[in-house]
Amino acid sequence: MARPWSVEAYVKRERIRVIHYGIGAIGAEVVRQALNRPDIEIVGAIDTHPAKAGKDLGAAAAVGRPLGISVSYDAESVLRDTYADVVVHATGSSLTAVYPQLLQIVSAEKSVISSCEELAFPWARYPEIAQRLDSRAREAGVCVLGTGINPGFVMDTLPLVLATACQQIKSIRVTRIVDVATRRLQLQAKVGLGLSPQAFQQRAADGIVGHVGLRESLAMIADSLDWRLDAIDETIQPVLARERLKTEYTLVEKGYVAGIRQTASGRLAGREVVRLDLEMSLGAKGPHDEIIIDGVPAINVTIPGGIQGDQATAAIMVNCLPAVARGRATGLLSMRDMPFLPYLKPQPQPRGTDARRELVE
Amino acid sequence: MARPWSVEAYVKRERIRVIHYGIGAIGAEVVRQALNRPDIEIVGAIDTHPAKAGKDLGAAAAVGRPLGISVSYDAESVLRDTYADVVVHATGSSLTAVYPQLLQIVSAEKSVISSCEELAFPWARYPEIAQRLDSRAREAGVCVLGTGINPGFVMDTLPLVLATACQQIKSIRVTRIVDVATRRLQLQAKVGLGLSPQAFQQRAADGIVGHVGLRESLAMIADSLDWRLDAIDETIQPVLARERLKTEYTLVEKGYVAGIRQTASGRLAGREVVRLDLEMSLGAKGPHDEIIIDGVPAINVTIPGGIQGDQATAAIMVNCLPAVARGRATGLLSMRDMPFLPYLKPQPQPRGTDARRELVE
Repeated sequence: MARPWSVEAYVKRERIRVIHYGIGAIGAEVVRQALNRPDIEIVGAIDTHPAKAGKDLGAAAAVGRPLGISVSYDAESVLRDTYADVVVHATGSSLTAVYPQLLQIVSAEKSVISSCEELAFPWARYPEIAQRLDSRAREAGVCVLGTGINPGFVMDTLPLVLATACQQIKSIRVTRIVDVATRRLQLQAKVGLGLSPQAFQQRAADGIVGHVGLRESLAMIADSLDWRLDAIDETIQPVLARERLKTEYTLVEKGYVAGIRQTASGRLAGREVVRLDLEMSLGAKGPHDEIIIDGVPAINVTIPGGIQGDQATAAIMVNCLPAVARGRATGLLSMRDMPFLPYLKPQPQPRGTDARRELVE
Repeated sequence: MARPWSVEAYVKRERIRVIHYGIGAIGAEVVRQALNRPDIEIVGAIDTHPAKAGKDLGAAAAVGRPLGISVSYDAESVLRDTYADVVVHATGSSLTAVYPQLLQIVSAEKSVISSCEELAFPWARYPEIAQRLDSRAREAGVCVLGTGINPGFVMDTLPLVLATACQQIKSIRVTRIVDVATRRLQLQAKVGLGLSPQAFQQRAADGIVGHVGLRESLAMIADSLDWRLDAIDETIQPVLARERLKTEYTLVEKGYVAGIRQTASGRLAGREVVRLDLEMSLGAKGPHDEIIIDGVPAINVTIPGGIQGDQATAAIMVNCLPAVARGRATGLLSMRDMPFLPYLKPQPQPRGTDARRELVE
């Protein structure tokens, strides 16, 4: 199509320079999506796993062609020696585990977008880490954002965006039901597929199985709506197979674990004001996302099939790159600090279509 | 409930001072909602209509009690003599008609949130007015925002927020079906209820009946996704009554107009990439909002019943007050310049829960 001016030529002049830290399932998907974006330039890659380190990023991320960028196990050197704007970080769910990596990135004066679930809204569970990350990032003049589809979007940001159309909100309830049949091995392991009920309880108690992030989503909702909760309750239960089930990766005998059912509930003055229900199981009936806001007006939103997790997590990370790389905010951020459309190139002064106009003139 | 600190005491110290300009159905609803908000103080009211001017705002806005604020017909004096942060403006749909009022507000160095539909994204249809409003607002150090449920949220901002979870968006389709049976007289008149098909066509051609805003929503979507459309097509058709219909306000004979069906369609390289369908009619079957994003991942969102228009428009205006009053942006804005959660009090530096922390310490 003939265009009066070229977006590509424009954005290439100031592409966002990105280092990929962690080339697992999420990290690789971000790499593949970033390659389709003319405004993003991949300038480095880090992964300590022997299956990734030393390889060309194209091979490590299953791009289908070499990218001429070697995946290094040496984060310190890559971060120090590479000129970059943002690090896309996807190495783990636990904030205490990835905290040293995040500090390393920030110390190298790079901003970071991370898929670490506990980083999505860390102020409630890890106030000290949050405070240290925030001050270190401010000192370095960079910012730190944890995001993804869940936590980061469907069970927190999206209900809070919908709340813009409400007053007098009495309660928010979000349900997400995922059929893990078609999902990757890692997710199937996370929900304890094939375990005995006893093994599941043990691993749930040890935090090895189960989704991480409900508590973060709940904290983000409550804090944003100024609800200082009296109590937060969380539950985790196995979904047991009613018949023998088979996936590409696993065989689940009848009576064994076919998935998880988790809830988080927040009460204010004895009344449940936030409730999050998550089911991730093999052959889950009617997978969907649902948001119910009891307010004026009431808003009920249904997303049949639900938003596909891995693709969406990678898309959100890529789409937040412009706001994180070009925005003025420094310190520890959450999705609620993003603009409505984080994928728009922020202007020094937010303004309609001025960027376009300047290009045309 | 016992709180360790008082939100109310805190926000009262720096309440947002608001003048209400236009006390019609929307304006009055905003007044009623604003009265429930401890962070908002109403400091003035303007309406030129003889039924409103001179009355106490409490009576004019059907609050049920006097507010001690007189509704003045003299906008110039109120704007000049009242110390205020933001003017809530709700006087009309046509930008050319309300433009002098907006200039008057901006000249008085007040920011403005307006329900004027053509102001929701004015750059496409009125580039000159947009440019002038923008430069005048910047000179005055204030900002101008047009918003509401439609345009402003359900057919533009919300699909664009959902697009954060997608890459490779091929098309966006939004449908909104409203049953006007329970809606106010003004809206029923806007859709031509009770007209003959001939009278409808005449009034549609004159722009007297029909929803205003589809073109603005379409322009906001296309511009945000960098789609420079080849062509935009709009249609408007009457929905004819299949039987005699009766509302609180109107009687519609069989074969006469029971509502409207409007579409806006945007094509890129010959392919339809944005389509907006709006039906507002008496007894419309299955009222709902629906957003379909053909992308990776695909996202289909359904809002059964649809988001109630007037309540939501007022809520969005009230909820955007903190971002407009306390944000750093000046000039002409649209909803896409708002933060994800415009109702949060913006910080000098966006940051997690620091505001809270400062209060507690």
